[in-house]
Formats: sequence, structure tokens, C-alpha cells
Amino acid sequence: MASSLLTTPSQTLAPTPSAARARGSSPPAAAQVSFSSPRLPARRALRVRASVAIEKEVPENEAPTTFLREDGSGAGSGSVRERFEGMIRRVQGEICAALEEADGSGKRFVEDVWSRPGGGGGISRVLQDGNVFEKAGVNVSVVYGVMPPDAYRAAKGAAKNGAADGHKAGPVPFFAAGISSVLHPKNPFAPTLHFNYRYFETDAPKDVPGAPRSWWFGGGTDLTPSYLIEEDVKHFHSVQKQACDKFDPSFYPRFKKWCDDYFYIKHRNERRGLGGIFFDDLNDYDQDMLLNFATECAGSVIPAYLPIIERRKDTPFNEEQKAWQQVRRGRYVEFNLVYDRGTTFGLKTGGRIESILVSLPLTARWEYDHKPEEGSEEWKLLDACINPKEWLVF
Amino acid sequence: MASSLLTTPSQTLAPTPSAARARGSSPPAAAQVSFSSPRLPARRALRVRASVAIEKEVPENEAPTTFLREDGSGAGSGSVRERFEGMIRRVQGEICAALEEADGSGKRFVEDVWSRPGGGGGISRVLQDGNVFEKAGVNVSVVYGVMPPDAYRAAKGAAKNGAADGHKAGPVPFFAAGISSVLHPKNPFAPTLHFNYRYFETDAPKDVPGAPRSWWFGGGTDLTPSYLIEEDVKHFHSVQKQACDKFDPSFYPRFKKWCDDYFYIKHRNERRGLGGIFFDDLNDYDQDMLLNFATECAGSVIPAYLPIIERRKDTPFNEEQKAWQQVRRGRYVEFNLVYDRGTTFGLKTGGRIESILVSLPLTARWEYDHKPEEGSEEWKLLDACINPKEWLVF
Repeated sequence: MASSLLTTPSQTLAPTPSAARARGSSPPAAAQVSFSSPRLPARRALRVRASVAIEKEVPENEAPTTFLREDGSGAGSGSVRERFEGMIRRVQGEICAALEEADGSGKRFVEDVWSRPGGGGGISRVLQDGNVFEKAGVNVSVVYGVMPPDAYRAAKGAAKNGAADGHKAGPVPFFAAGISSVLHPKNPFAPTLHFNYRYFETDAPKDVPGAPRSWWFGGGTDLTPSYLIEEDVKHFHSVQKQACDKFDPSFYPRFKKWCDDYFYIKHRNERRGLGGIFFDDLNDYDQDMLLNFATECAGSVIPAYLPIIERRKDTPFNEEQKAWQQVRRGRYVEFNLVYDRGTTFGLKTGGRIESILVSLPLTARWEYDHKPEEGSEEWKLLDACINPKEWLVF
Repeated sequence: MASSLLTTPSQTLAPTPSAARARGSSPPAAAQVSFSSPRLPARRALRVRASVAIEKEVPENEAPTTFLREDGSGAGSGSVRERFEGMIRRVQGEICAALEEADGSGKRFVEDVWSRPGGGGGISRVLQDGNVFEKAGVNVSVVYGVMPPDAYRAAKGAAKNGAADGHKAGPVPFFAAGISSVLHPKNPFAPTLHFNYRYFETDAPKDVPGAPRSWWFGGGTDLTPSYLIEEDVKHFHSVQKQACDKFDPSFYPRFKKWCDDYFYIKHRNERRGLGGIFFDDLNDYDQDMLLNFATECAGSVIPAYLPIIERRKDTPFNEEQKAWQQVRRGRYVEFNLVYDRGTTFGLKTGGRIESILVSLPLTARWEYDHKPEEGSEEWKLLDACINPKEWLVF
């Protein structure tokens, strides 16, 4: 069992399956879970959290009805964890079906399933080199068990919430589930999409009686075009805002800014793309309300994205436009390898590398000192990545 | 003036020029220098060192005869710093000329020159999309001045050499010069080459009379093929060994292993390529001897590499072989963005991004769960990256 203390990734729950079903021979690797300080309001939560790689995965031939067990892990209980698993698995199915239809190549997502002896497992689905999509990955994972006490202590300490306990804590029960996805289309006028919704629970150490259970939600959906087509960006953001507004009028402006701040390529002084929404450590609302909010956001992926794909998938393009898309793909690689918490965490803790890096595009390009001509279409996109805009009039 | 304390990069001296000559409009960015603990034997030197971003660059229209000044910085003195600058500038010219001839496209390296008001400057040369080379960069820089005392104290502390001084130290004079290069050919049977040779000096703080001057050398040359052609790898390593053996019989085995250890992609458990030589913090030999050694190594680049390029540049290849090369280029990107000390340092300290990332290939590829068939030519290369081999019989 490997364990390490690191910042929590945004894509911790990117599944780490073995390539069991499709190929049958890859060795199992460490599954990952993470937890973070749950008591602080999300807005003010410290960015320091702790994570831990738990145990080896086991390839499975097919996905079980649920990754939960009836021994208290939540199966059949109507619990939030059970409802969240049901949601992400339903959404995985719906989105993969919609993407296959939009792709129109007759290609199907290849599925890899894995389980953890300690509890839970995951399903990874990838469609590569289709008609519309260069590379599309949609992954779910549901893992639980106990995390080492040092990881728990680090998380508590990092939260600086004053609860310095003088006694030696035991293993901490945890639960972590999520769906994450990156969709890279071929056409340079069709944008890349990323989304990720996740739910965490930790209990206090087993030898601390009466300690309260903690939980939180995280996630977001963001758009990365190579060309700025305002109609598309406004449509995308308006669907995000509609989803947010059903729950709290502060959500969209707050999570839109959080997204602009998170997907920042510091060494370029530019964002990866044109944003969307992003949130983490969210627990200062009713738990059912946040479950419904995550469900609404995940359910908004198709209406936010597929109309854009339908409009742009067949747009004629030339070699220069394809090359510019490839340059922007290079930026995507730079962000994910250098800054993304899920990716950098996964690389450091020895997760299944193919699952972690399924977010990378099939192809990318780095031209020396490439600078779009001022006023060009390429320049307009870059300008919007450097200076985040408000896409919607309130 | 920005300053930060970080591990020393292997490519700190990758120049950070502004694109003055070719384009005339890019803003100047911070030049970088680094220093490390010079008193420890290289073999046992701690890997913790300190670096500092010094000041903005100024684009220049042409390269001066020397970046040194006659006011004590070493011009006209026959000093090691003067002889080292002469060597790297001569080698830059020789290698660029040889590469242009090998490329055969009539394309010339595009040159960017920059200077530092505080002292020194650099010359960046890039040839992109030639006949033979997809992207070739050969850069020199020569920078000097004073570094902030906190950077110096951190370096001394990191060296753990017991010289904890109770008084407040002043600014520390430093000198840093180097040549660095990455050459990515188009043909998948023609290997990528990287080399980098550098020389550092620091003095004790100006208000510590009689404190000794320190200096050290670093560098290496390594080969990254997509296909394992033993004839080529053996030729390459034998030229490295010949260069090493002229100075010390321990050099080749020691620096060959150092190279295998350094260019390690931990999350893949594989090396970036098939190695060569790598050394750092080298100061436990006669200074003239090490200058001659660095000169010999830099002079060995052409005889080690160009015969391989001549043999492989026109080898017929198919789409699958080109795609495999692109997958290996993806590994190159992963190493450079995630592990390479020069790149990660440059990204963190705000150096000129195009100079730092000129090492990245023009194009790269990430296929989900790509696994070469056992026994295939692709598998043989991967196997040699996972299990470093001794290429020469001693």
C-alpha cells in the first residue's frame, strides 16, 4: 500500500482502470482517492489538502450494478453516496451514447473496468479516432475504505482549523466518487470540453467517538475552443448559468471566476480556454441541494456542448487552422502536465498512467515563438484567453 | 528584480532571448542564472541548490564579439570564463553550420540576440521545418552580476557545509555561461539529440574578505531514438566514451549511469531515451582539465551525431512508424514539462517561455493505452528505455 501526502487533484477520481476488457494483460496499478478540509466554507478553504494512494486495482470483466456493498458502504440505503453513484453512472451512459451518435462513425467507446479489494472500483470509457472526435474519455470511479491516519492528520493540520488533537488517531474511513471527462474533437472550429463532478466523505478516526462525519462536493465544466465563436461560447456559458441559477444566484459568477482562476497557464499568462464553471470543497449548503446541483450540472453537459459540436463538426478548415488547433492543444498539454492538480497528483502517486493522461489530446504542436497576427481570428482567441471576458449580460 | 530559490535546472542556461532580430516586437523577459554548492565532491553533492531570476532582457540587433566586459568580468584576461564563452560560441557556430549543411534545405537558423543590463546576454538559434530537422535549437548564454544574499545563503545552507555565518551577507557576484541544444529530426529512424554544457562561478559575499571563489561545470549529451538501431547507439556511446577516456577512465561509466538516472520518466518507469553522459557540480578536478573536458564533449557532438543522421535521414518509413515516433515525442514532452530541472525552473521563474520550450518537439501524440506488441521493433526500443543497457564492451 502506497501512501503520500499531496495537494488534492481536481481529477483525483479520474479512474485508474487496468486495460482488462480490451486487452487483458496490463498490470493493475494503484487506485487513488483524496480528501480535503471539509469544514471551511468553500470560498475560503485553504488550497492545501491531503491525498493518498490506497491499493492496487484488479481488472474486471464487466461493471457491477453498484460498486457499493451492503455492509454499511451505502448500498440500498438511499444515501447520498448511493444516489451520487447512480447519478454518475447514468450520466456516463447517457453522455457516451450521445457522443457515439454525434460521432457517427459507428465506433463505440472501449470500456475498462477495475475494482479495489478494499472497496469500490471504476469504469473507464475511451473513443479514439472517430469521425468527429479525435479522443474522448468518460470515466467514473467509486472508491472507499480507510485512509492512513497520517494522511488524515495532514489534512486536519493543513486546514488550520485549530483542532490539533493530542492523541494518536486511527485509520479514517473515507468515500470518494466522481465522473470526469475530456472530449477532443477533430475539427479546429469544434471546441474541446472538460467536465468533472465528484463527492467526498470522511469520518473522524474510528477511535474518536462521536466525531462528526464530513462531506463535500467539487466539479465543473469548461470549454476550450481554438477559435472564438461568440455564439458558441455564449450558448455554453448560458447553459452553465441556467444550471447554477436554479440553486443560487451567486453560483454562476462565483464559479465562473473560480474556473478562470483555476485553468490558468501561469508561464503563458493565459487561460487554457474560455472557462465555464469550477468549484471545490462545497459543503456550506444543504447536502441534498448540492447533490441536486451536481446532478443538474452533469446533466447540462449534453445541452451545453452537443449543439456546438453539431454546428461545427463539418466546418471546412485549412492546414493553418488545423496547425493553430494543434498549437492550442500544446497549451492544453502544458496546463495538464504542469498545473492540473489531478494530473500532477496522479503522476506523483503512481496511478494508472493511461487513465491519468487520457485527458491529453491525440496530437499537439509546439512552434518556436508562434505569435498570431494582431486582429486575426487566432489572435482573438488568444486575447480572450489572456483577458477573461464576461460572456453573458446579467 | 524577481528572485526565487529553487533546484538548479540542467538547462538554466537555455537562453531567454527576445525575438528581436526576426520579429522585433516581443517583450523582454527575465534572464536566469543559477548557482549550486561548489565545495562538495560532485559525486556526493546534494541535489538541493538555489537559483535566481535576475533581470529583464533587452533585445539586440546583433551578437557582440564577447558578452564579457573589460571591467573585471573577464574580457581579455585569458580567464576560464573568457575561454568558456569562446568555446561555446565557436561550438554554436560550428554545429549550426553542420546542421544546416546536413539539413540541405537551404534554410538557415533564425537568430535572436539579447543582453542583460547587469551583465551578459545570449544568442538563440532555431531552425524549424527543414528537410531533415523538424525543429533544431542551439542556444548560448553568458550572464553575470550579483545575486541577492538570500539566494546565496540558501545555497550555502543547502550545501550543509557547516559554514553557518552569523553575520548578514551582502550581494554575491556570480557568472554563468552555457550552450544547450535539442535537435528533433523528421525521420522516425533518425534520433533526437540533446546536449548542454555549462560553467558557473560564484564569489563569496563582497563583505566577507578573503572568502574563496567557487566554480563548477555541468553538462551532457544524450540520444533519444524512436527505434533501437544498435549500430547507431553504439557509435554514439563510443564517441562519448572516447571523449571521457581522454580525461578519466571513471568518467564514462559514472556519467553514463548519471544520465540514465537523470532522464527518468518516473510515472512511466522508463527513460526518455537511450542515454549518453550527464554530470553536474563537477569541481573536484583541475579547472583547466574540466574546461578541456567540456570542450572535448561539446566538440564530440558532431562526430557522435551527424554520421547517424546521414545514415537515417532518408530511410523509408510508413505511417505507423511516424505515429510511433510521435508517441515517443509525447514522452519527450512529458519528461521536459514534468521533470527536467531547467524547464520546470524556467516555467516557475518566468523566463522567456519560447526559449525554455524550444526543447519541445514540433509535434507529439498521446494514444490511449498504446502498448507495442512484444518483440516488435517498437517494443525493443521501449524495453531499452525501461532497462538501460551497457552499449559498449569494456
